Formats: sequence, C-alpha cells, structure tokens
Amino acid sequence: MRPSIRNAEEPVYRRLANLIEGLILERSLRPGDRVPSVRKFSSQQRVSIPTVMQAYVTLESRGLIEARPKSGFYVRARLADSIPEPHGRHGRPVITNCAQTDPLESLLGDLSNPRLAPLGAALPSVNLLPGLKLGRTMAAIARRMGPSSVGYDMTPGNEMLRREIARRSLDWGCGLKADDIVVTVGATEAVSLALRATCKPGDTVIVESPTYFGFTRMLRELRLNALPVPLRSSSGIDLEAMEAVLRQRRASACLLIPNFHNPAGSLMPEERKKQLVQMMVSRGIPVIEDDIHGDLQHEGARPRALKAFDKDDSVILCSSFSKTLAPGYRVGFTAAGRWRPQVAALQRVTTLSGSLLPVMAVAEFLKTGGYDRYIRSLRHTYRHQVEQMREGIVQTFPEGIRLSRPRGGFLLWCELPGHVDSMQLFEQARAAGVSIAPGPLFSPDGEFRNFIRINCGYPWSPRLERAVGVLGRLVKQHSRN
Amino acid sequence: MRPSIRNAEEPVYRRLANLIEGLILERSLRPGDRVPSVRKFSSQQRVSIPTVMQAYVTLESRGLIEARPKSGFYVRARLADSIPEPHGRHGRPVITNCAQTDPLESLLGDLSNPRLAPLGAALPSVNLLPGLKLGRTMAAIARRMGPSSVGYDMTPGNEMLRREIARRSLDWGCGLKADDIVVTVGATEAVSLALRATCKPGDTVIVESPTYFGFTRMLRELRLNALPVPLRSSSGIDLEAMEAVLRQRRASACLLIPNFHNPAGSLMPEERKKQLVQMMVSRGIPVIEDDIHGDLQHEGARPRALKAFDKDDSVILCSSFSKTLAPGYRVGFTAAGRWRPQVAALQRVTTLSGSLLPVMAVAEFLKTGGYDRYIRSLRHTYRHQVEQMREGIVQTFPEGIRLSRPRGGFLLWCELPGHVDSMQLFEQARAAGVSIAPGPLFSPDGEFRNFIRINCGYPWSPRLERAVGVLGRLVKQHSRN
Repeated sequence: MRPSIRNAEEPVYRRLANLIEGLILERSLRPGDRVPSVRKFSSQQRVSIPTVMQAYVTLESRGLIEARPKSGFYVRARLADSIPEPHGRHGRPVITNCAQTDPLESLLGDLSNPRLAPLGAALPSVNLLPGLKLGRTMAAIARRMGPSSVGYDMTPGNEMLRREIARRSLDWGCGLKADDIVVTVGATEAVSLALRATCKPGDTVIVESPTYFGFTRMLRELRLNALPVPLRSSSGIDLEAMEAVLRQRRASACLLIPNFHNPAGSLMPEERKKQLVQMMVSRGIPVIEDDIHGDLQHEGARPRALKAFDKDDSVILCSSFSKTLAPGYRVGFTAAGRWRPQVAALQRVTTLSGSLLPVMAVAEFLKTGGYDRYIRSLRHTYRHQVEQMREGIVQTFPEGIRLSRPRGGFLLWCELPGHVDSMQLFEQARAAGVSIAPGPLFSPDGEFRNFIRINCGYPWSPRLERAVGVLGRLVKQHSRN
Repeated sequence: MRPSIRNAEEPVYRRLANLIEGLILERSLRPGDRVPSVRKFSSQQRVSIPTVMQAYVTLESRGLIEARPKSGFYVRARLADSIPEPHGRHGRPVITNCAQTDPLESLLGDLSNPRLAPLGAALPSVNLLPGLKLGRTMAAIARRMGPSSVGYDMTPGNEMLRREIARRSLDWGCGLKADDIVVTVGATEAVSLALRATCKPGDTVIVESPTYFGFTRMLRELRLNALPVPLRSSSGIDLEAMEAVLRQRRASACLLIPNFHNPAGSLMPEERKKQLVQMMVSRGIPVIEDDIHGDLQHEGARPRALKAFDKDDSVILCSSFSKTLAPGYRVGFTAAGRWRPQVAALQRVTTLSGSLLPVMAVAEFLKTGGYDRYIRSLRHTYRHQVEQMREGIVQTFPEGIRLSRPRGGFLLWCELPGHVDSMQLFEQARAAGVSIAPGPLFSPDGEFRNFIRINCGYPWSPRLERAVGVLGRLVKQHSRN
C-alpha cells in the first residue's frame, strides 16, 4: 500500500466523493438518507468547505446524490436498486458435446465490431488501460537489453514475472512460489493446457451454466463433453446440484469462474469455495479455475482464489492481465499444482512460450508498483461504469427484467421477459448499431434464449446512453408482439 | 531485388570477395585453381587495384585462398571438401510412440545453457539479428498507436503481416493470398495446430529419420505415433522407402522439413518435392511442411516450398521469423490450405493470437524493405560460419567422420565413428564447457547414437575454436578406447 503516492495523484475532492460513493454502494447510506452536511464533513475530514462542495457536486453529476433546497444533500433513489437478479436454471444437468454452440461462432466476430456500440465483447476501453506507460516500459527494456531483446523466453517463462505473481498470490489467499507458475499466452493458453493435461478426448468436464463461451468452444475443439451445472447469482455453482450429478456421472475435471463470473457476475463465498475444493479433492477431480476478474472487486478485499483452499495440489489456477492491463500483450499464467510438469511439457509443444518483451513490460509494471496504484483506480472506474449501465438499463428497459448485481468486473447479465429471443434481438441491435452478447452463447446446450450479456468496460457516454435506449425500445417491441 | 541499396551498404571489396567465395563454394573454382590476377580482376570489374587487393586479403583471412610468392592467389585445398556426408539409415520403418525420447528431455535445457559454448541449441547469435532495429520499430508503433497498442490481434492475425507474407510467397513458388494465412505463436504453434487439425490421438504421422526433436516431443504429447522414414543427405526423405511403407501402413499426416533440414541439412530437389506432394495427394494424406530455414539458402535462388507443388490444397505450410529475425518475438504463420478453418478454430481456443506489437514490428520490418536487405547479408554470414565450422571440425576430429554439407541454414550433422556414444560425449563435452546436441535426440526411436548436431549460428571465434578442439579430443579418446 502506498497511500502517500495515491494522495499525490488523486485530488482531495475526488477521494471524498469516492468515500461517500463507497458508503452508498455498500448501502451504509441508503436512498433517501441525508449525507453529512457540508460544514460537518469539512470539519470531520479537515478540508475546506469548497473542497467538500466540489466532492458533492461530483457525486451529483454521478447521479448518486441530489440537493434538496434548504435541506442538504440526499442519496438518490436509484431505480437499479430495486431490480431483482436473474434466475438460475433448474433443469437436470445433461452431458453435451457442445455441438449446438457451433452455429453461434459466426456471431463472435461481431461482438467486437468497432462500428457497433461496444456492449458485446467483454473488453475494457483501451483508454482505461495503461497502454502508453506499458509501451514506454517495453521500449526502455528493448533499449536496455539491446540485441538480446530478441532472445527466447522458454517454459516456464520469465522469472521476474513469476516472482511478481508469486508475491501477489498472498493477496488471493495463496502462497505460491515462482517455481509453481508457468507464464502462458493469455489465460486462454493456460486453460487450454490445463484441460489437455487433465483430460483426454471423450472425457466429461463440469462447467457452470451459464459459462464463458470460450470454454464451450474449447471443450468442443478438444473433443471434450460439457456437463453444465446451474449457477446461483448469489453464490456461484450450485454445490448441491453438483453433488447430485456426481453420484451418477464421472467427470475428469471441473472448469469454473469463481470470482466475478463471466457472464453472470456471481462471486462464490469463501465457505462455498472451501466446500467445492473438498468435494472435488475427495473424488479426485482436478479443479481448473479462471480468475481473470479476481483483481477487479468493486470494494473491500480481493476475493480468494479456489487455489487458496487447495491442500492437495489439485487446483489449477489460470489467469491473465488481459482484463486489467493489455489484452493484446497476451500475458497470462497458470499455477497448475500437481499437473505442472504436464502443463509445462504441453506448452513446450504448443507455443514454446509467449513473446518476451511484452512479458517483461508487464513484469516491470508489477514490480515498480505501477500496477497496484493503477488497479485501485481501475476497480473504482469499473464499479462506476457498471452502476451507470445498470441505472441506464433500468430506466429504458421494460418492467419484468432481471439484472445481475456484480461485486466485481465489468459485465452485466440481464434476464429479459421470457418471450424475448436474444438471438433475434442480437440481429436487430446489430442493424441499429449496437453489439450485445446473446444468452445462448453462454450455454453449452442452447439455453438462456431470453438473456443478454452487457459489457460495461467503456465509460458512460451519450453514445452508450443512446445504445441502451435503442436496446430498451427493441426489447419493448418484443414484449408487445 | 534492390541492387542499388545493396551496393550503398556493402563495400565494393566485400562484394568482390563474396563473388569469388561464391565461385569457390559452388566449386566453379576448385582447390588449387588460380583466382583471377589482381590486374585482370580489377579491369574486369572496373575497380581499383587496391580494392581488389583488399578483397583478396579478405578471402585470405577467411581461409579460402592463399598467396603463392611471385605467382598469385590460389584456392586453398580445404580439408572439409574431402569429407563425405553422413550415411542415411536403411532399416525398415517401424511405428513408434516416441516414448524412448522421454529420458532425453532433461538434456534440452542444457542445449542453450549460456555457460556452455553454444554448439547445442539451433540458435543464431542475437548479435546477428536486428534486435535494436526491431525494438525501435516496436517502440515507434506503440507510440503511434497510443492506448490502442494494448488491443487484441484476433485470429487470423494482423493483416499487414499476412499481406507481406503473401507477397513473399511468390519467392517460394507459391501465390498465397493474405486470407490463406493465419499468424501463429512461432512455427511451434503452427505445426502443433496443423497436427491437431489433421490427426486424432492414436493416429500415425510420417516423419523423417532423423527429425527435429521438437516434432517427436510434439507427437508424444499429442498422443500420436511416429513412422520414421529414412532421409538421404542429398535429397531429403527417401520417397521409395516411403512408398513401400505406405503400401503396408496407414498414416494420417506427414511432417517434413524439405528445405535445409534440421538436423541433416538436406534440401529436397524440386522434382522430388513434386513427386512427394503427388504421392501424398493421391493417398489423401495431408503434408505438413516446416520451412523455417527456407529463406537461408547459402547461394542461388530461394528454394521452393512443398506448397508450391500443391494443386489440391493439401499442404500445410508452417514457418516463422525465429531463425531470421527474433526467436523471442514468437511470430510465425501457417498457410493451411483446406484445413485453414480447423486451424483457425483451434487457434481461437489455444492462444487466441500472439502479441500484437511484436507481430506489427515484424510486419513493418518486412514492409519497409529492411528484411530483404538484411536477409541477404544474413545468408552470407551463415554460409561463412558453416564453412568455418566444417573446416574447424575436420582439422580437429579423427579420420572416419562424416559431415553434412548443407546448402542453407546454420546446422551441421556429424556422423562419428561407429563406436562413439554421443550421449556419453554430450556429458563429457558439457563437463568441459561445450554444449552439443546428441544424435538420439533426433530419432523417434533412439537411433543415431554416433551422431551429433553442431550449431553454427555464432561467428567463428577463439572460444568456438577451443570448443571444437575440446570436442575433437573427446571424440579421439572414444576412438582409442
């Protein structure tokens, strides 16, 4: 923690505004509550009255508080607060080869089509990411290394990066050593290697339902079957359903997103994480966890990884810096426990390693403390963007929708009225200049037809406001049909 | 071809020296022949007498010619010219699961151990590669792109690079279009994707014997079997042996290095390449070719790829810039013909793509002509280093050895007297500070015990001379036992 540096970079009024916003978001201050008077807050915080005024004006512009004449500032009643979270699925889990996801492939290119408003792909705006700083760092490293900057970075990958990751793993409840880690080409290579190390073609893998579409695609290409187990919006994968299904079915691995799930946003409570790991260990089933959003909690402490509860070396932690620093640098990693030798051997015949210079640039950014300062502000930004998007959706979508309330990351999972077909909505939205991710993408077997995932990785803007308005009207038209 | 640019960069005397060296290497001038007199050559070439003298002194220092008093300059009798090429294997091809290559894994780290003289790994000295230029190019691109330099480069990869590769494919006898190409994480990812697209676990793949150890390792990890077919030093894989074996065995693919083979150095003549492709097409067997040394011919025209003879979209060309520009940038590509959709789908679940900035740096280096000038000089450098190493080996090794005479690349394949155990030699050389690659590494089934591969990627130096001397003494000790 470097509070002095943070203070030096962040104006006082913004720190105060964030402090109040935090209280509102954690519901210590609820809609209708009066926020501290300007005079009182200024004396509490030992700052001037104009500074507090500036903080309150900032909160007003964020739509969080409103001035009432001769009375003071009050927390606004926000529509989004009243909206329920999406339903989980309750059907009996059935093994699938994911073949139904194949026709959806054609949508994927459109998700990040730059001509469409960017609510489709799970991508942050590059303007939020430290591209210039990383680029300068990489250039300095290349100059410093001279000719040897073209050299190989062999499996297990750059040691400085592995040491930095090991150091940070304390924050996730783990105590990894640099030698436990293999640097990968993004989390994609990490998860792909983990599946290949633990399963052979024809095997069955437990996944959440819904799950990230990259995973169903990966299972299909690796000729693995998926066994989707329902997810609860409040607590992640349904352990009771999983236990029931495991009495009847064999699984070779289990592939989960315990922290800030894509698309559902759910966060597994620690107790459930512990239970899950125990349940899998007792059955000898390796657990592959994707933790790419783990650093992006909206408040409080960084959630623990499943790996933190792994006393048996049975959890394969996979992650990357693609959602926090640089998607295109392709810097990820895995801590594969007892499968480390197999993962390393597979990487040697898959890519040998990723590019050295981007890996070193990320390592240096982590080492010099740039990352820690930056990620604190990014968390706040994502939280704010998610809140604004939630509010925008609730204001324009018809009644009866349900909306996830993620406590981290930058994705929303929206359940539309039962009769809305999100595949049709996808096409209509596309024609109207808006990209969204339709629900069936996230199902191994074509479920979630009335769901959409909304990316909140971009700062709220008139363009996004219009895009959400367009979506709302389209959904309402469906509702009328 | 840009002769004016070349002349601007290369001193006249060196151009003349290279011209004579070319004649010597192609044996138009043979040991004992008199080279043109200084006066005559100066008038032939319209250059001054001192310039010719400087050229001849250069050739002398390269050990290619010698002055005889009052007579002129003569081509030196070089020991290496008299040395025969290694034998091919003649045993009947037998399918193997490559399990025997497993214990050799532990050697691989040592091949590029920086404390050992670098005759082991197939790596050029980074001082020969344009690291500084590429680093500056990448820094400029990052500055120009600003925040978007952290963006994704999705399959099939950067279009500028694919266009540059397509343009160059004319030089290999192909006429690829940018859309035929998928950018990969080095040739390793390309070959790995090609094998996974064409084979399923348990299938059999034809390889050359010897072959690159990365391939046997890859087959083993992908649970594929190898069917090694002997290689002829003069003409590559033995087509007659292949035809015979295919009458009895089924193969799902064939994985070859037709140009400047690793380790054997062989180059398939065009007629044989054509025959091979026809033979495979008629049997419906996809051909995977690794062409990473293709641009490194020592003289004459760039050899054609197998893909040049592919009228059926059955050849999967794999290559990279790891041996020519930057191993650690991990920039490779594949033109997968009819398997392009499968290769692209597999890449999306393997890595998504490589790092954008290194890919763009290579693309710009190709586009601005830097590559073409640079590769001409690199070819000459490698040829020269190979010649010096051959000479060094012949001077210090015992009689009875055989040595490859590669017409491209920077590797030598050396057959030692039959009783020498190269695994033991590897250990002894290592203890004496020299890294070599023992023959069994290159065999799917433990053959080539009396062979070693020697890397000539480093400029000749007293250190290398000592290392070769050490090796020679060790081999002689074996011979005496």
